[in-house]
Amino acid sequence: MLTLHHLGKSQSERIVWLLEELQLPYELVRHRRDPVTQLSPPALQALHPLAAAPVLLDGELMLAESGAIVQYLLGRYGGGRLAPAPGHPDFAPYLYWFHFANANLQAHLGRNMMLNRIELPADHPVPAMARMRLDRALRTMDARLADVPFLAGEALTAADIMTVFSLTTMRYFCPVDFAPYPRIRAYLQRIGRLDGYRRAMAKGDPGMALLLD
Amino acid sequence: MLTLHHLGKSQSERIVWLLEELQLPYELVRHRRDPVTQLSPPALQALHPLAAAPVLLDGELMLAESGAIVQYLLGRYGGGRLAPAPGHPDFAPYLYWFHFANANLQAHLGRNMMLNRIELPADHPVPAMARMRLDRALRTMDARLADVPFLAGEALTAADIMTVFSLTTMRYFCPVDFAPYPRIRAYLQRIGRLDGYRRAMAKGDPGMALLLD
Repeated sequence: MLTLHHLGKSQSERIVWLLEELQLPYELVRHRRDPVTQLSPPALQALHPLAAAPVLLDGELMLAESGAIVQYLLGRYGGGRLAPAPGHPDFAPYLYWFHFANANLQAHLGRNMMLNRIELPADHPVPAMARMRLDRALRTMDARLADVPFLAGEALTAADIMTVFSLTTMRYFCPVDFAPYPRIRAYLQRIGRLDGYRRAMAKGDPGMALLLD
Repeated sequence: MLTLHHLGKSQSERIVWLLEELQLPYELVRHRRDPVTQLSPPALQALHPLAAAPVLLDGELMLAESGAIVQYLLGRYGGGRLAPAPGHPDFAPYLYWFHFANANLQAHLGRNMMLNRIELPADHPVPAMARMRLDRALRTMDARLADVPFLAGEALTAADIMTVFSLTTMRYFCPVDFAPYPRIRAYLQRIGRLDGYRRAMAKGDPGMALLLD
């Protein structure tokens, strides 16, 4: 039996979505951020040394890190779903966008979020560079989505499941104007119509407005 | 035939190391950072829209993102080496530390690197939080390495290959005192004795001092 510890308004929404897409049975344990500090609650700190979410329990196993949990669930229970195999033409783009999600897009959002908390002159070069790099990541993704409906190609994959949090819920923490990225906005509209995504967000973050535009 | 575009003093050293461990034939194209700005040279900007390194060429395919390239090479040419299979007891820790490398450790190093470029009071809460989170990541890794010689367990895996750059060469960009992390220092000494690592660093970054202590 799988148990998922999910922190509301966090990247652990990726795992709720993956579990819904794979239609695996699981118990969902919901945690909430401290309303003042927005930090993880003590219950998550007791569970894992990094106070991280998501945390997946599978029998004796406890696993954190959303990328690791996605690969674990796909490897153990995926049966080839949501991840093109090494011989498939979408294998390389799948891997690229899967890793781009945390190593590039989310990293730049995290840096901008942090810089927004510091009072700096409007022309300071450090936030200017951070904004430029985030824009470059978003333009790269926008160009990709001119060619294909989902990041790896024609079909939804775990690369989308890794990415969408950064384009939506993460904007509660780092607001970004998506007007310059019309293909990303169209993509988010497509994502918002998927049953698995809608079920996941209704279960994991009931009442939270989805930033799909 | 594989061609690797490697940027000196960068995370693309991961791929040189992986190719040496897998003993795959490849052509190495070395690029250097601009000596003043430390940015990628125009040749890399011409190759890839993000001016990123590493970039791997495999026939018609061009692939960036070190995590993606590692998974691609393991999936296509690894033959099960350096990555425990889903049924192996090291599968979950392998995935955890593989993803921890970029999603946690490197992300916190990148944030600290950026904050070091801004003049802020010593007690400013934003860099204090960034330092605390980096220390927490390093303490978590130090505790892990009290139990096992390599991150996934008894054997070297691609989780180590993803991680070591952040513990070594990245310190040219974000200096960190490793005195509080003796198990990480012992681990780096072990890594520094591996033939594949030594060959890779000699080929990719000849003359660069290795920050293994």
